[in-house]
Amino acid sequence: MKKVIAVLPGDGIGKEVTQGAVEVLKAVANCFNHQFEFVYSSMGGEAIDQYGVPLPAETLTICKDSDAVLMGAVGGPKWDHVPPSVRPEKGLLQLRKALDVYANLRPISVHAPLADASPLKKEYVTDVDFVIVRELTGGLYFGTPSERREENGEQTVVDTLHYTRAEMKRIIKTAFDIALLRRKKVTSVDKANVLESSRVWREVAEEVAKEYPEVELEHMLVDAAAMELIRCPKRFDVMVTENMFGDILSDEASMITGSLGMLPSASLSVKGPSLYEPAHGSAPDIAGQGKANPIAAILSAAMLLRHSFGLKEEAAVIEKAVEQALGAGYRTADLYAEGQSVISTSKMTQEIVDAI
Amino acid sequence: MKKVIAVLPGDGIGKEVTQGAVEVLKAVANCFNHQFEFVYSSMGGEAIDQYGVPLPAETLTICKDSDAVLMGAVGGPKWDHVPPSVRPEKGLLQLRKALDVYANLRPISVHAPLADASPLKKEYVTDVDFVIVRELTGGLYFGTPSERREENGEQTVVDTLHYTRAEMKRIIKTAFDIALLRRKKVTSVDKANVLESSRVWREVAEEVAKEYPEVELEHMLVDAAAMELIRCPKRFDVMVTENMFGDILSDEASMITGSLGMLPSASLSVKGPSLYEPAHGSAPDIAGQGKANPIAAILSAAMLLRHSFGLKEEAAVIEKAVEQALGAGYRTADLYAEGQSVISTSKMTQEIVDAI
Ligand SMILES: CC(C)[C@H](C(=O)O)[C@@H](O)C(=O)O
Ligand SMILES: CC(C)[C@H](C(=O)O)[C@@H](O)C(=O)O
Repeated sequence: MKKVIAVLPGDGIGKEVTQGAVEVLKAVANCFNHQFEFVYSSMGGEAIDQYGVPLPAETLTICKDSDAVLMGAVGGPKWDHVPPSVRPEKGLLQLRKALDVYANLRPISVHAPLADASPLKKEYVTDVDFVIVRELTGGLYFGTPSERREENGEQTVVDTLHYTRAEMKRIIKTAFDIALLRRKKVTSVDKANVLESSRVWREVAEEVAKEYPEVELEHMLVDAAAMELIRCPKRFDVMVTENMFGDILSDEASMITGSLGMLPSASLSVKGPSLYEPAHGSAPDIAGQGKANPIAAILSAAMLLRHSFGLKEEAAVIEKAVEQALGAGYRTADLYAEGQSVISTSKMTQEIVDAI
Repeated sequence: MKKVIAVLPGDGIGKEVTQGAVEVLKAVANCFNHQFEFVYSSMGGEAIDQYGVPLPAETLTICKDSDAVLMGAVGGPKWDHVPPSVRPEKGLLQLRKALDVYANLRPISVHAPLADASPLKKEYVTDVDFVIVRELTGGLYFGTPSERREENGEQTVVDTLHYTRAEMKRIIKTAFDIALLRRKKVTSVDKANVLESSRVWREVAEEVAKEYPEVELEHMLVDAAAMELIRCPKRFDVMVTENMFGDILSDEASMITGSLGMLPSASLSVKGPSLYEPAHGSAPDIAGQGKANPIAAILSAAMLLRHSFGLKEEAAVIEKAVEQALGAGYRTADLYAEGQSVISTSKMTQEIVDAI
């Protein structure tokens, strides 16, 4: 198979962890006789420094012309005070919108050798295995008006939570499709007791559910969901929700595993390249020190192979190699516990490459 | 002291737990020679059944004429399918708005004898002690438009996140005032990398901070806050945030303690009566069975004495009585662990009354 992968390392540890992912992808290409071409491009704070904007036109073209996009992380204190319209995060939002990657998938599963790393008691986290499906291109993130106003002499501000029914339908269908391949349960999260948009969301979820008689649908209010993620994370199989709720709940859920450095994500489009990135941020405090955990980026690369290229076996090989490295007791600093060997980003990458 | 307390038991276990709180208040009145008059009124599902609306005009008048309002909980499956405009929750929102109770205070602290009840490991929860200050009368909950629309032949829906600068200022000031009496640290939670309203929020927080040089202010993004509440809940002293973020984060935070049945809340107005209610819901599944934990309602009554009547000593007496009952090993079903005696709502109330 011959494919072009756009690589956007971004800022901070983004660079180190994408390098790890690329090395792993090269190892897979070698073993399975694929040809992956990697096209690097600039994005986030780095792009601001070079081009004055977080998502240069050339970067977007490279992404659009690729078969899949692998991203690191963007942002850092250096750019915290640039105007909002050219912040690193703005580049990420523009990229999501331009690629129309409407479905953000965040698998949350607890790797057996790491069950102790969680702030939660072991009996709460063992066997946790679910996916959060977050709508990524609508809602409060993109609705207009989003502006300051004067109303009767008072200074006010509004943001707008906007959705079309069609946007709701496609993300909820994606969740049901994923549930079909899993334990066949969808938890749809909304705030239907307060928001009109959530009431429409609930209606659409009911409509979609009719097309999937084998899948069980439950509705849950977002505040209850924030509790249930801690009280009983095992109960979830596929959770689907709108953009802002998904942002909050998926970060909360990442703590169940206690190892944010392990969590990949995929942002899928209907057609055109999808976007893969670790769930963690750019961690400027440890950047460039070889301390970063490359596993989230490496598992994101596995998702890329599975979802964008249909390479299931290759994806599984990466995932097994990760388990093997962990099983052998190798840990990056973020996962350290007594009796284990702390290794660097590149050494962890090498262990995983060797296991492939 | 002579005071009038409006009591809105509401639905489900709301009735049982407010009864517990009223008995405790009567005991305090006896010991300290106060006169509390309790005026009962109908609200929520019960009011829908009787009057067709969740907040009858008479109930609102009784509340406005009182010195403080003690509420149970509203809602239940029976009213899940009534139109949104007359749902039990709508009554609660109307009451909050009508009383202008803009500041919802939710203390999160771990009672030493219950540290084991948390899904989190003991070392994460021991000594946790913070307050969430949630804005309660603005934001997505009350902004307009909140409606379905047709746009270019497409079915769409919007909700509006609306704030005045003045609304932000008063809630943030409240948080700083509370911090002054505590460990002098405020964590202001927003989503300033995406929302214009959050950028204004952050500016206002900076402005207010200048008036409180002894208080440390930190900003935190809402997704990061959802993680930090689990990763390191001890780090918080006072957390302040807008309405919807506060709804989600305060329910998440309630899980840290592992005992939602223990958590009180106060919703304060600038002038006029404030509103006190347990953090838990109406729990229709266990209603009427004497299983409910009355402690959240009883501690809400303690908050009422402290915040509305300035009766600090009396409030402390209630809080000590609760610790005493727990220390003696008494538990309602929700808190049960091996080796303890499970007792009913009324027996728990009696234990606390006796301890007073
Ligand atoms: C960086 C930020 C704009 C982004 C978001 O809120 O979507 C991040 O938190 C995420 O979850 O990918
Ligand atoms: C019942 C509901 C409208 C309410 C809210 O969202 O404010 C509840 O969840 C709460 O937190 O008091």
